[in-house]
Amino acid sequence: MALLLLMPGRDMQGWKKNLLAVDGALDVRVWPDTGNLDEILMVVAWNQPPGSLALFPNLRCVASLGAGVDHILSDPALPPGVAVTRVVDAQLNRMMAEYVCLAVLHHYRSFGRYEEHKRERKWVQEPVPPAEGYHVGIMGMGVIGRTVARALQALEFRVLGWARTPKSLPGVRVFAGKQELDEFLSLSNVLVCLLPLTPETKDILNRHTFSLLPRGAYVINVARGAHLVEEDLLEMIRSGHLSGACLDVFREEPLPPDHPFWQEPSIMITPHVASITRPESVASQIVENYRRLLAGKPLLHQVDPRRGY
Amino acid sequence: MALLLLMPGRDMQGWKKNLLAVDGALDVRVWPDTGNLDEILMVVAWNQPPGSLALFPNLRCVASLGAGVDHILSDPALPPGVAVTRVVDAQLNRMMAEYVCLAVLHHYRSFGRYEEHKRERKWVQEPVPPAEGYHVGIMGMGVIGRTVARALQALEFRVLGWARTPKSLPGVRVFAGKQELDEFLSLSNVLVCLLPLTPETKDILNRHTFSLLPRGAYVINVARGAHLVEEDLLEMIRSGHLSGACLDVFREEPLPPDHPFWQEPSIMITPHVASITRPESVASQIVENYRRLLAGKPLLHQVDPRRGY
Repeated sequence: MALLLLMPGRDMQGWKKNLLAVDGALDVRVWPDTGNLDEILMVVAWNQPPGSLALFPNLRCVASLGAGVDHILSDPALPPGVAVTRVVDAQLNRMMAEYVCLAVLHHYRSFGRYEEHKRERKWVQEPVPPAEGYHVGIMGMGVIGRTVARALQALEFRVLGWARTPKSLPGVRVFAGKQELDEFLSLSNVLVCLLPLTPETKDILNRHTFSLLPRGAYVINVARGAHLVEEDLLEMIRSGHLSGACLDVFREEPLPPDHPFWQEPSIMITPHVASITRPESVASQIVENYRRLLAGKPLLHQVDPRRGY
Repeated sequence: MALLLLMPGRDMQGWKKNLLAVDGALDVRVWPDTGNLDEILMVVAWNQPPGSLALFPNLRCVASLGAGVDHILSDPALPPGVAVTRVVDAQLNRMMAEYVCLAVLHHYRSFGRYEEHKRERKWVQEPVPPAEGYHVGIMGMGVIGRTVARALQALEFRVLGWARTPKSLPGVRVFAGKQELDEFLSLSNVLVCLLPLTPETKDILNRHTFSLLPRGAYVINVARGAHLVEEDLLEMIRSGHLSGACLDVFREEPLPPDHPFWQEPSIMITPHVASITRPESVASQIVENYRRLLAGKPLLHQVDPRRGY
């Protein structure tokens, strides 16, 4: 019985070391050295090769390396009935809160413009919108969305939330479901996407959504590239309806060198770094789930495949 | 009996309107239309012309437009015995906390580098230092310093403080006095200057101070330009000991077009905008102090001229 690390391009040996540091008796294998395929009970997966999840006759759990599981649930090789888990980690939440606060402040306090002014040696003071009536709207109010909301509140931003189902968070007006989306959008001067990627949320950042935001609104996407219809964003920036965007995720990653985003001055680009899982931080929850699997106990952070998160 | 606005280059008519909105019966005058000089009891001063504070025989109070009073205390035209007050304002504290959090995150999460990468269409992930053992050191633990510290703590940064005298703040190790400065510096990966400008703090950001910081440290100056020995900063950045700086204040403002800071890629420049007094926010405390002056009551936020703040 063994646990397989199946995440090409990541530091799998480093992950193995961290898992063994939690439990030195574990049989941890590293793709592609799987050994006997029958022995693999659990796979930790990220960017797994097509078809690979179908190779293990006794597979009982696929664990995502991060908070999202769309890359697993959408994999046609995932055998039915196999449990899927995600990572829930304070360190991951903290990094995301840092990044979103940075992206919001970077826009709100015009740091991009000041960098432009610097290149031209211009001493020009940019206006700061009054905090009253200025709202940051967060799409996705799960554990990460709530951490981000609290961090923005500590900076005294007015925060709104939007979720599939009603939620309550102190000081945050949370809108729920499709019927409340338009009102949420109409009040959001900054729109932050933290949604899980599901068939319902794919392409949710589109021309129609953007048109409902107040003029001059700013878009931050730290969820998945497939949430955003990229040409709609460019169109709405070029028309002046949106003031810009900060994007950490893209339809194609790495972002191709000929992609028009690189040339758009009001788009800030980061290479999928908003929040990165640290093996030393999450190794213990992976090991705990492996032990629960062996013991037949309920798993931590198991996702509902019908809901998609 | 009248109150005079003496702040050339600022929107003095806007200030007058805000003061009159608090008390329509006030006699508010706007420089240079002083009327009878004998009638001026209180002056609100910013960038006051040389000698101007000596013009009013019955002057009893000079109010600073901002949190700093160095421009008043260092004015040789300030008559002895005249009270000097400063502004203490939640809005001012909030703006400063926003700015410092932005400057710290901008450095910590490499947004300057990502802007460079974008210009070269490079998809390169920059490392994020582990939060443990990474400290933001704040020089100046008055009301603004404490607000900044709490905002950084909400983002889960480890915060250190340095003050003239011992202070206590939950979760912050505060070093006190010259004898504890070296240890404070040796632990500060980011150094934030929020000190009042006094003869003791002038030039405090110098080659010696910088040399005590850990290698790769980052400097944020949001206090006064005269705190920083500008050529020492450039030298320490060019030698690689410092990784860069974010500067909002300068020896000469506006920063002259031929100043070497404009050309240094690792220096972020903003034009004295970190925290700006809003008349609608502080008009009532100015009016309150004018009333107290007339009634012979103790003033709010009066500074100690010997201490300098």
